[in-house]
Amino acid sequence: MKRYLLAPGPTPIPPEVLQAMALPIIHHRTPEYEAIFAEVRRDLRLLFQCQSEVLMFAASGSGAMEGAVVNTLSPGDQVVVIRGGKFGERWAEICEAYGVRVLPVDVPYGKSVEPASVAAVLQRDPAIKAVFATQSETSTGAVHDIQALAAIIRRTPAILVVDAVSSLGVMDLAMDAWGVDIVVAGSQKGLMLPPGLAFAALSERAWALVPGARLPKYYFNLAAERKAIEKNQSAYTPAVSLVVGLRESLRLILAEGLPNVFARHDRLARATRAGVQALGLELFADQPGCACTAVKAPAGIEGGAIVKGFRKRGITIAGGQASMKGKIFRIAHMGYVDGFDVLTVLGALELVLADLGYPVKLGEGVRAAEEILQK
Amino acid sequence: MKRYLLAPGPTPIPPEVLQAMALPIIHHRTPEYEAIFAEVRRDLRLLFQCQSEVLMFAASGSGAMEGAVVNTLSPGDQVVVIRGGKFGERWAEICEAYGVRVLPVDVPYGKSVEPASVAAVLQRDPAIKAVFATQSETSTGAVHDIQALAAIIRRTPAILVVDAVSSLGVMDLAMDAWGVDIVVAGSQKGLMLPPGLAFAALSERAWALVPGARLPKYYFNLAAERKAIEKNQSAYTPAVSLVVGLRESLRLILAEGLPNVFARHDRLARATRAGVQALGLELFADQPGCACTAVKAPAGIEGGAIVKGFRKRGITIAGGQASMKGKIFRIAHMGYVDGFDVLTVLGALELVLADLGYPVKLGEGVRAAEEILQK
Repeated sequence: MKRYLLAPGPTPIPPEVLQAMALPIIHHRTPEYEAIFAEVRRDLRLLFQCQSEVLMFAASGSGAMEGAVVNTLSPGDQVVVIRGGKFGERWAEICEAYGVRVLPVDVPYGKSVEPASVAAVLQRDPAIKAVFATQSETSTGAVHDIQALAAIIRRTPAILVVDAVSSLGVMDLAMDAWGVDIVVAGSQKGLMLPPGLAFAALSERAWALVPGARLPKYYFNLAAERKAIEKNQSAYTPAVSLVVGLRESLRLILAEGLPNVFARHDRLARATRAGVQALGLELFADQPGCACTAVKAPAGIEGGAIVKGFRKRGITIAGGQASMKGKIFRIAHMGYVDGFDVLTVLGALELVLADLGYPVKLGEGVRAAEEILQK
Repeated sequence: MKRYLLAPGPTPIPPEVLQAMALPIIHHRTPEYEAIFAEVRRDLRLLFQCQSEVLMFAASGSGAMEGAVVNTLSPGDQVVVIRGGKFGERWAEICEAYGVRVLPVDVPYGKSVEPASVAAVLQRDPAIKAVFATQSETSTGAVHDIQALAAIIRRTPAILVVDAVSSLGVMDLAMDAWGVDIVVAGSQKGLMLPPGLAFAALSERAWALVPGARLPKYYFNLAAERKAIEKNQSAYTPAVSLVVGLRESLRLILAEGLPNVFARHDRLARATRAGVQALGLELFADQPGCACTAVKAPAGIEGGAIVKGFRKRGITIAGGQASMKGKIFRIAHMGYVDGFDVLTVLGALELVLADLGYPVKLGEGVRAAEEILQK
C-alpha cells in the first residue's frame, strides 16, 4: 500500500535529505564535519531570525525545553506558564520538576491566550522571571500571538521563552525583531528531518540570566554548548547524521525563501480548513495555526475511528491526545507538503466519513480546497 | 578519495542499516512503529544480557549517564567514581553538577582499577550509595574489570553503574549474571548506528532506588520511560529513524551471535596490538580493551601529526583528548569492522610513520597482524 504521512511530526522527509543521511557517516572531529556545521550554524540563524547562536542538542524538542528552564532559573523562582494544551502544560511540568513556582495562565483547549491577561499577571508580580509560551499548540491546533506577547513582556524584567517546535519554518517568528528571548525547536516538524535534534537560541537578555541560574544541569548545559559551537563542535557527541541532513533541509528552506515558506504553509492551512468546513465539520481552534488543523469529530463518530479509517487507506494523521482523545483528529500540513497533499487528505477524509455513515457529498471538500489553492 | 572511518565513534554503519534509515519515515504512534519497537525491546535485552527493560532516549550516551545519576540519587548522597580517563571523569562531573558527593578512586591514565581498592573504600564508608565505573575507557583504551568489581559491590548496599558506551556489543558484559545494576550505552559504537540514541538498563536493586531519588529530572526520567515502554512507546518523541536502524543492527549482531561478536573484536584488537608493537610502538593501556587501541606517539613525533597523516590518506582515526593530546593516537576496531580494516589501518600507519621520518620496515605491522588473523 502506498503510504502518506500527514501527522504533526515526524513529517515527511525530502528525498535529498534522506539521501544525504544515507551516505557513509563521517566523524565529528574532522574538518569535513566542521564545514557542514559552520554552514548549519549560519543557516540556523537565518531560520531563527536571530543574531545569536542557535545551539543544538541530540534530543527531542522537550530536551531543549528543559534546557531553557534549567539554564535561566533557580529553585523557587516564579514564572508564568501559558497553558492551553499538552505542550503548554509541558512547560509547567518541567518547571515544577525543578522546583520553579508556576503561575499558570490557563486558556481552554482550542483557545488562544489573551495577551492582556499575561500583562495583568506580570503587573501584579514584578518578581516573575520568565513567561513560557507555545507558538503553535500542536495538541489543539491553536496559535498564540507571540508578537503581541513579546511587545508586553519586553517592557518587563521577565524573559519570554517560546516553544516553536511545530512553528519554526512554518509560521513567522521574528525572534530578534519581536524581542523573543528564547526560542526552542525540534527537527521533526517544519525542518523536515527525523526527530532527534533539539534547538535553543537565546537573546542577550536571556544569556544574562545564565551565570546566575542555580538549577542543576549537565547534558542540557547551554554555556557548554556555546563554548563548543565556537569551534563548530558540540559539548557531547552530536547526532551527526541528522546534522548532515539538516544542512540539506536548511538549503531547501532558504532556497524557497522564508516568506514563501510561510506563505505556502498559510495557503495549505487555509485550503485544509476550507475543505473540512465544506464537509460540514468544525475546527477545534478559534485561531488555528498553519502547522496542523484540529477538527472536531462529528456527533456520533469517534475521532479514533476517523484516524483508523485513514490508516486503512495508507494515511497517517493524528488523533487527540489525553483529554481530547476521541474528540478531535488532527491533519498536519507542515514541512515537505504541498497542495496535492491537502487534496489527498481531504479526498481520504471524504471517503472515510462516508464509510462511517456521515452524510458527505464526495468531492465537496476537495473542491473548496482547490478554490483556495487556485488563487 | 576513498574514505575509511576507524575512530572510536561514530563507527562505520552497515549498508543494510543506512538503507533502512533512508526509507520514508514512519510515525511513532502507529502499529507499524510499535512492531519495530517490540522487536528492538526484545533484542536489546539479549544484547544487554538482562531480563529488565532496556530504556531508550533520543540523546548521546552522556544523556543516559545523567539519567543513571538523577534517577537513583538525592542531593548530598555519597558515591564512588572510578576515574582513569575522560569518561570516568564525566561520571564525577555529572554527580557534582547535581550536588552528589564524589569519593574518587583515581587511576593513572592508561591503568585499570584495582578492584580491591574499591572494596577498601566501600568498607570504610557503608553510606556509599553507588559506584560509577567505565568498562571501556575510550580515552585511554584501558578496560576495567567489571565482573570483579560487581563481585565486590553486589555484597554491599551500593549499586554498580557501568558506562558501557564503547563496550556494549564489543566485549562481554553479562549484566544479570555478573550482578551489574545499571548499564548505559550509546548507539554510535558497537551498535553500528549514528549517534543520537542512548540506553539505560536497571536491575531490580537499581529500580528500588528510583522512587526515593530526589534529584530533579524531566527529560531523562526513567520511570516515565518504563511506563511508556510497556506500550512500545517513549515518553517523548523517539528518534524514529535511529530506532528503525537499530532493528537492523540488532538483527546483524544477533545473527552473528554475541560470543562470535566478542571473539571477532578480541581477534581484531589482538591483531592491531601485534601490528603496532611489531613497528616498535608502545601501547598506552596496560590492560587494553577490544574497542580501541591507544598507541603512544613515538619520541619526537607529535600524535596529532600521525592523525593528520592518516587523514591525508583518507582515514579517520583519533588523537588523544585533553591532557593526552599529542601523546597518543587511537585506532578503533569496533562495530562494522573486520580483519581487512585492521590491515588497512596498519598499512596506513606504516606509510604515515615513514612519511614522518620514523624508521619503519614497510609491511612488518601488517605481517604481525596477519599472523593473528590467520589463526
